[in-house]
Amino acid sequence: MVLETVVAEGLAHLSYLLGDEDAGIAAVIDPRRDVEVYLELARRHHLRITCAVETHIHADFVSGTRELAAATGAEICTPESDAYRFARRSLREGDTLALGDLCLRVLHTPGHTPEHLSLVVSGGDEGEPWAVFTGDTLFANEVGRPDLLGGGTEEPLARQLYHSLHDKLLPLGDGVLVYPAHGEGSPCGARIGARRVTTLGYERRHNPRLQAGSEEAFVHDLLASLPEPPAYYPRVKQVNAEGPRVLGSLPYLPLLDTEEFRARMAAPDAVVLDTREVLAFGGGHIPGATSIALREAFPIWAGRLLAPEQPLLLVLETNADADRVQRHLLRVGLEQIDGILRRGMRGWAEAGLQFERIRQVSIHELREWLNNGHADDLQIVDVRSDAEWRQGHIPGAIHLHAAHLTERMDELDRARPVVVYCGSGYRATTAASILQRSGFRDVSSVPGSIHAWRAAGYPLVQ
Amino acid sequence: MVLETVVAEGLAHLSYLLGDEDAGIAAVIDPRRDVEVYLELARRHHLRITCAVETHIHADFVSGTRELAAATGAEICTPESDAYRFARRSLREGDTLALGDLCLRVLHTPGHTPEHLSLVVSGGDEGEPWAVFTGDTLFANEVGRPDLLGGGTEEPLARQLYHSLHDKLLPLGDGVLVYPAHGEGSPCGARIGARRVTTLGYERRHNPRLQAGSEEAFVHDLLASLPEPPAYYPRVKQVNAEGPRVLGSLPYLPLLDTEEFRARMAAPDAVVLDTREVLAFGGGHIPGATSIALREAFPIWAGRLLAPEQPLLLVLETNADADRVQRHLLRVGLEQIDGILRRGMRGWAEAGLQFERIRQVSIHELREWLNNGHADDLQIVDVRSDAEWRQGHIPGAIHLHAAHLTERMDELDRARPVVVYCGSGYRATTAASILQRSGFRDVSSVPGSIHAWRAAGYPLVQ
Amino acid sequence: MVLETVVAEGLAHLSYLLGDEDAGIAAVIDPRRDVEVYLELARRHHLRITCAVETHIHADFVSGTRELAAATGAEICTPESDAYRFARRSLREGDTLALGDLCLRVLHTPGHTPEHLSLVVSGGDEGEPWAVFTGDTLFANEVGRPDLLGGGTEEPLARQLYHSLHDKLLPLGDGVLVYPAHGEGSPCGARIGARRVTTLGYERRHNPRLQAGSEEAFVHDLLASLPEPPAYYPRVKQVNAEGPRVLGSLPYLPLLDTEEFRARMAAPDAVVLDTREVLAFGGGHIPGATSIALREAFPIWAGRLLAPEQPLLLVLETNADADRVQRHLLRVGLEQIDGILRRGMRGWAEAGLQFERIRQVSIHELREWLNNGHADDLQIVDVRSDAEWRQGHIPGAIHLHAAHLTERMDELDRARPVVVYCGSGYRATTAASILQRSGFRDVSSVPGSIHAWRAAGYPLVQ
Amino acid sequence: MVLETVVAEGLAHLSYLLGDEDAGIAAVIDPRRDVEVYLELARRHHLRITCAVETHIHADFVSGTRELAAATGAEICTPESDAYRFARRSLREGDTLALGDLCLRVLHTPGHTPEHLSLVVSGGDEGEPWAVFTGDTLFANEVGRPDLLGGGTEEPLARQLYHSLHDKLLPLGDGVLVYPAHGEGSPCGARIGARRVTTLGYERRHNPRLQAGSEEAFVHDLLASLPEPPAYYPRVKQVNAEGPRVLGSLPYLPLLDTEEFRARMAAPDAVVLDTREVLAFGGGHIPGATSIALREAFPIWAGRLLAPEQPLLLVLETNADADRVQRHLLRVGLEQIDGILRRGMRGWAEAGLQFERIRQVSIHELREWLNNGHADDLQIVDVRSDAEWRQGHIPGAIHLHAAHLTERMDELDRARPVVVYCGSGYRATTAASILQRSGFRDVSSVPGSIHAWRAAGYPLVQ
Repeated sequence: MVLETVVAEGLAHLSYLLGDEDAGIAAVIDPRRDVEVYLELARRHHLRITCAVETHIHADFVSGTRELAAATGAEICTPESDAYRFARRSLREGDTLALGDLCLRVLHTPGHTPEHLSLVVSGGDEGEPWAVFTGDTLFANEVGRPDLLGGGTEEPLARQLYHSLHDKLLPLGDGVLVYPAHGEGSPCGARIGARRVTTLGYERRHNPRLQAGSEEAFVHDLLASLPEPPAYYPRVKQVNAEGPRVLGSLPYLPLLDTEEFRARMAAPDAVVLDTREVLAFGGGHIPGATSIALREAFPIWAGRLLAPEQPLLLVLETNADADRVQRHLLRVGLEQIDGILRRGMRGWAEAGLQFERIRQVSIHELREWLNNGHADDLQIVDVRSDAEWRQGHIPGAIHLHAAHLTERMDELDRARPVVVYCGSGYRATTAASILQRSGFRDVSSVPGSIHAWRAAGYPLVQ
Repeated sequence: MVLETVVAEGLAHLSYLLGDEDAGIAAVIDPRRDVEVYLELARRHHLRITCAVETHIHADFVSGTRELAAATGAEICTPESDAYRFARRSLREGDTLALGDLCLRVLHTPGHTPEHLSLVVSGGDEGEPWAVFTGDTLFANEVGRPDLLGGGTEEPLARQLYHSLHDKLLPLGDGVLVYPAHGEGSPCGARIGARRVTTLGYERRHNPRLQAGSEEAFVHDLLASLPEPPAYYPRVKQVNAEGPRVLGSLPYLPLLDTEEFRARMAAPDAVVLDTREVLAFGGGHIPGATSIALREAFPIWAGRLLAPEQPLLLVLETNADADRVQRHLLRVGLEQIDGILRRGMRGWAEAGLQFERIRQVSIHELREWLNNGHADDLQIVDVRSDAEWRQGHIPGAIHLHAAHLTERMDELDRARPVVVYCGSGYRATTAASILQRSGFRDVSSVPGSIHAWRAAGYPLVQ
Repeated sequence: MVLETVVAEGLAHLSYLLGDEDAGIAAVIDPRRDVEVYLELARRHHLRITCAVETHIHADFVSGTRELAAATGAEICTPESDAYRFARRSLREGDTLALGDLCLRVLHTPGHTPEHLSLVVSGGDEGEPWAVFTGDTLFANEVGRPDLLGGGTEEPLARQLYHSLHDKLLPLGDGVLVYPAHGEGSPCGARIGARRVTTLGYERRHNPRLQAGSEEAFVHDLLASLPEPPAYYPRVKQVNAEGPRVLGSLPYLPLLDTEEFRARMAAPDAVVLDTREVLAFGGGHIPGATSIALREAFPIWAGRLLAPEQPLLLVLETNADADRVQRHLLRVGLEQIDGILRRGMRGWAEAGLQFERIRQVSIHELREWLNNGHADDLQIVDVRSDAEWRQGHIPGAIHLHAAHLTERMDELDRARPVVVYCGSGYRATTAASILQRSGFRDVSSVPGSIHAWRAAGYPLVQ
Repeated sequence: MVLETVVAEGLAHLSYLLGDEDAGIAAVIDPRRDVEVYLELARRHHLRITCAVETHIHADFVSGTRELAAATGAEICTPESDAYRFARRSLREGDTLALGDLCLRVLHTPGHTPEHLSLVVSGGDEGEPWAVFTGDTLFANEVGRPDLLGGGTEEPLARQLYHSLHDKLLPLGDGVLVYPAHGEGSPCGARIGARRVTTLGYERRHNPRLQAGSEEAFVHDLLASLPEPPAYYPRVKQVNAEGPRVLGSLPYLPLLDTEEFRARMAAPDAVVLDTREVLAFGGGHIPGATSIALREAFPIWAGRLLAPEQPLLLVLETNADADRVQRHLLRVGLEQIDGILRRGMRGWAEAGLQFERIRQVSIHELREWLNNGHADDLQIVDVRSDAEWRQGHIPGAIHLHAAHLTERMDELDRARPVVVYCGSGYRATTAASILQRSGFRDVSSVPGSIHAWRAAGYPLVQ
């Protein structure tokens, strides 16, 4: 028996290859779009992938079932749903998928979405169910969010979720392993735990959602605690329902010299996307560039801030980052990449072109400004989520979630200096880049941000 | 939180790197000797390894705690035992190891060995214990074997094991994850399951050993069902107690030309070790060579059949196998490798040197011989374990476990033809190579062996 | 300035990426079909490939100019010729290609083919020509062969070649570096030297072809000394003239289980291609399989013995060989690969299926047979080239070049035993596999072959 | 025959593995200290390295002959010289080293150093010499510098060099390939060309040094044109004469958390070495850190500015840079690396620690300042070499070669603002970091520097 977990960093997306070595066949559960990793694992274990399953219509990443089917001839298996617009096999409660000696049994577990299914694994050396692929129904320390479809479906879905958890999953037994579709860091759950695998017993006893005393309490608490979902989710859900374009292989990304890069910058929707670290962006960047540094959160912020119809022009720390950046973008459905600035900022500077800076101020400088009474002049902007804001902020700060910056930036004064902070300085630099591009004259960002502020023992207000 | 599983194929040895990313520190549990993999994982996750723990004095692989400590400055932590002969920290029941927000609590779980400990993990996002590193106490579908120390300790250890399982581990709760030191294929358990991670709840309900109705039944059944342990275990245990030599890095393996290779073959104890596949060995090999093909079972059979004082001369399929072969050998304490035949059998043949064959006969040929009454002349030798033999064998076969071939081969007639089979043809070729080297004139081996025999529907006898 | 040599082993094909780092652009000269290597080199050096040039219509490998153009938008540049059937830019004597500060000047150097051009490099830090890409016009120690077009063109082309060499290339000056399209081992020249780069001066003084005292002598000696070209050359030349199919990426190769593999073996033209080493093939193989071991000569023999319309079924030493085997096959225009036997011969044997052997006999055994008077019964077949045969052969051997085996095998007696030898045992096993498949009952092969025979000091006859 | 070129980027050091595949042996010429690359090449080609040769006592990199001998048992071969202090074989004019069919003949070619030898290659498929390893005697477009020993030896060595070139090397013939020990970018020659391989003929006709009409002119022109050699050369030469320490493998580099990093920063000689790109360094860095960005010139500037007794504390862009940085440092004899800041500047900022900036100003800003009459207040410092300065500089600039900054910085006013520029902004940031560490209050650097200034068409003065 082979069970391999594939982690897509950033989205904290977990997918699985499960196979039987004697029969030589395998299924992939919730595959991502760049599927070579599954082909490689299958070959290493002498397995043919015969089945590409998705547990539900994903909203945070473009599903790879069609790509995998195109590459290998595997059958696409999805939950039953009218939303789908491509050929596939629909799985219903009680259906089974045989993989040699292994058996995947389908449970309909609606809640995160109406069509959502879970897959119970038995077989191998064991006749009894020993694991369940729960998709976005149950995570370590968290449950799936029922609010992504909107239109007043939140509460009915939350109620369905309660029953899926208590009537379908937990009865499988405390000793059953739980393999969810997401780990820590995914916005598909509010506070998913760090364990990649967990158990029904552990979640039954310790998952805060499963401690609710009643269906009512569960529904109430769940709906009250949900962070705002990334705005790109409906777009990707639509792509997954219609059937993502099959790529075949990673599209070639041309290197562009400064002249061509500048010419393409002139296109109406073009976005210069700078993935270097925040201090490098602060030190110097192309005027108008958007900063989304290549850290864990890159794909989520790329999904949030960029649109599929915008041609992307990449400024990388090194050409060696190109592959990783491209995969992250493709996974959230951003395919239109015009190319890469050939020698990055080094070439840009040597060509004698203009660049801009965003001052990176330390918390000590910021504190000094505050102490010296500059706060009146300064606009200190906190771009964190509501939940983070509620846990305490820097005195005098204005709250403006980074995801809403574009709509709400007119609440700020373009002529007065702005200092942006967040949790660690990452979103702050992204937000600062957007403000600067939008005409704000004097924009600073705070590396370390609240993390540093706390570490230094400076006071927060609530 | 970071939890990475490192698999040493062949030995089916599982070791773990557990770390806290905020604190930036990690422990490695039951490390193997070639430790770069842990250094690389730690660097990728921005962790310093501060602690190298072993759950017990291992018998099947050379422990890497000293190597890891030499490389990183990590503290070596072992169970308390008088057997150890090197500096280390002794862990006792109730001791805790803190890794930032994570906590490892020590349980003394004797049974496999008297000193054996398990490590209960709590923390991360959870205050309650959520996992336990069980070493060789509890595996998926199996428990540790209490018979490796000999001298009548089997029964007392089996009783201790019963209590370690029932009084120490199971009370941790059904939902607790179990991370054992071995997976399927290890001779440290009779029938370890294929799941790399399991749960206390699943094992409590389904592990056959834990279904025993009483301590007496447990002890009786366990002791009655143990396969013979590999003979090299006491040697490696001794190495681990005294403290394995620190290597620093993989020793350089010289390429030897045919002249030097032949000169070294003349050394009294020298062994020509041919790791090519069995059909290639059968097709042609250096006279006197021992076949241990580079499949999963390689390290176990290398441990079984080779001694540390024998200089090894390697014949590889390709030079690219050298690294893997060397690691396997080092892990079972075989360090004295003289070198590699520079161009393998291709160079040997082109130099005009003698080679030998072992006829690889199909089960159909063998069956025909039997039907034609050749059985009288043939000696059909089954080199599988006792348990395999009991499940059925080819009519007319003589049983002679491969591990005892050297002692018992005089029971066979060197002048009469011998056909060797096993489960798949692997051990058969190894055994055939040993017989041929020992003066048997006409030796054949059966690719596919019992596997093929069954697949063809030919009759077995019991 | 960047100049990177890309070697396609086996075909001994040399291609080049030449670029100017300041301008950021590069050309590839004589690219192969699997072009990722050029994309990767270009990215590493911050270069865009703007030009894909071929020096002539190649006969031994499928040209990658179209593939490269499809991937990068590079312009395809070829010599002027009516044979081409796809869009491209035609280069004529005196044309120049500018790569920033570098300049490639076109020389028309017919001889190997009528359209053949060479590219003279100047620039970089030097204004004077410092190198020339000679394609198949001039190699280290050899010149291109003028006999591939047939139809009586050999002599006129040989005369053109004489003038291309003496009137076009040598006048560039002794100090000019020569970068040819082939190195040692290519059948595009009779005895190409081992140096990958050479100089006009060295070749002028030491290349045997350039020592001919007159055009007449040159033409006479050249035409008299040409080995037989591989029969697949005209086919590939045709593909290159028409324009090879653009692949986009390496096609996916499925793993086939034994049942499906056997089903596909039943297809009329299907070929089981076994790429394991010769001793492994000898030890056991699928009945009817063709042996072409994955050594240097693999692609040439694959080109020679296989046809594009034959579905290929692969038996590999390890799945890790798949990528290399596939590339080799694609390079000689063999695209129709049905798949790979999932677990190779190991799976085949375990499934209880029939296999065959080819006895691998040592030269000592062969010699003994000869000495014992078995020569009358034996058919000893030498499958080397005419030139090798003329240098001496084993007494009593019959000469039958491996490339003509299929047409001429009826000269042998299927009922009498056959022993096949060649230079090293490689072609011998290939030939033996073909004889066995064709109904020869008792076929042996000789590892080491003439190489071993000589090393042992055994007598040859001429 | 195998001839592989190994390039050590940055030092532009070229070393060679030359071997004979039939004999199975190889020599390495002028190996670097991290020798795995040669072991790997040798294994791939089935070669044993029997000989590690150095052409002279190198000054720019630590020689790997001892390391290679320790790993493989190869014989160390050096020129004859009293300076050496370790066991080796001394090569003298006319000595030959046989590598199977290949032959290396020793020429004594003093000039760069008194003991310098060159190695003439013949054999392979050619009896006549076809290549020469020239070490630092002859490069593409340049000759070795005779001024590194000092003490008035420049002129006598220059005269010897003239004769080595004209009497020893050129007579080998125009068609002979030249494989030098350095390529473009090495300070071992003033203007080494970009071609990695060249020919005696090309150099005879086009190398400017070989166009001198007489010995006198050669000596005069050569001595008049030499750039200042890096100050670390005598130190490394001494190491190479005494015999570098054998490392065995790359020493382990620990990750240090911020607390330990800061504790070690307190050591008297400790240097915080920041290898991130210049814009990142400008954006924010640890107070007192030295910037040497990980570009091509990294090892040369590390050699120049750091001393072996200084403990180095590394701040990297990513942990993945650690291996490359460590190798560069070891190659110039910098072995004392305390460790790596665990999470780089990201962790530093989040810990709430102080950081500093160096303003990165564009040439347009600088130009505006100059136009606005700020030049009186500003100190514009040009840190390029004398030769670069002479080719034109920014109006009003002060010239102060980066290599002499420490000695000469008191010529500047610490209280007035300083803007530093160089060719591209690399050395400028290094110099700016040193000034800032030394108490200069207001330091800026100019990305793009002269390169950008020229590209923008701004005026230079001479």
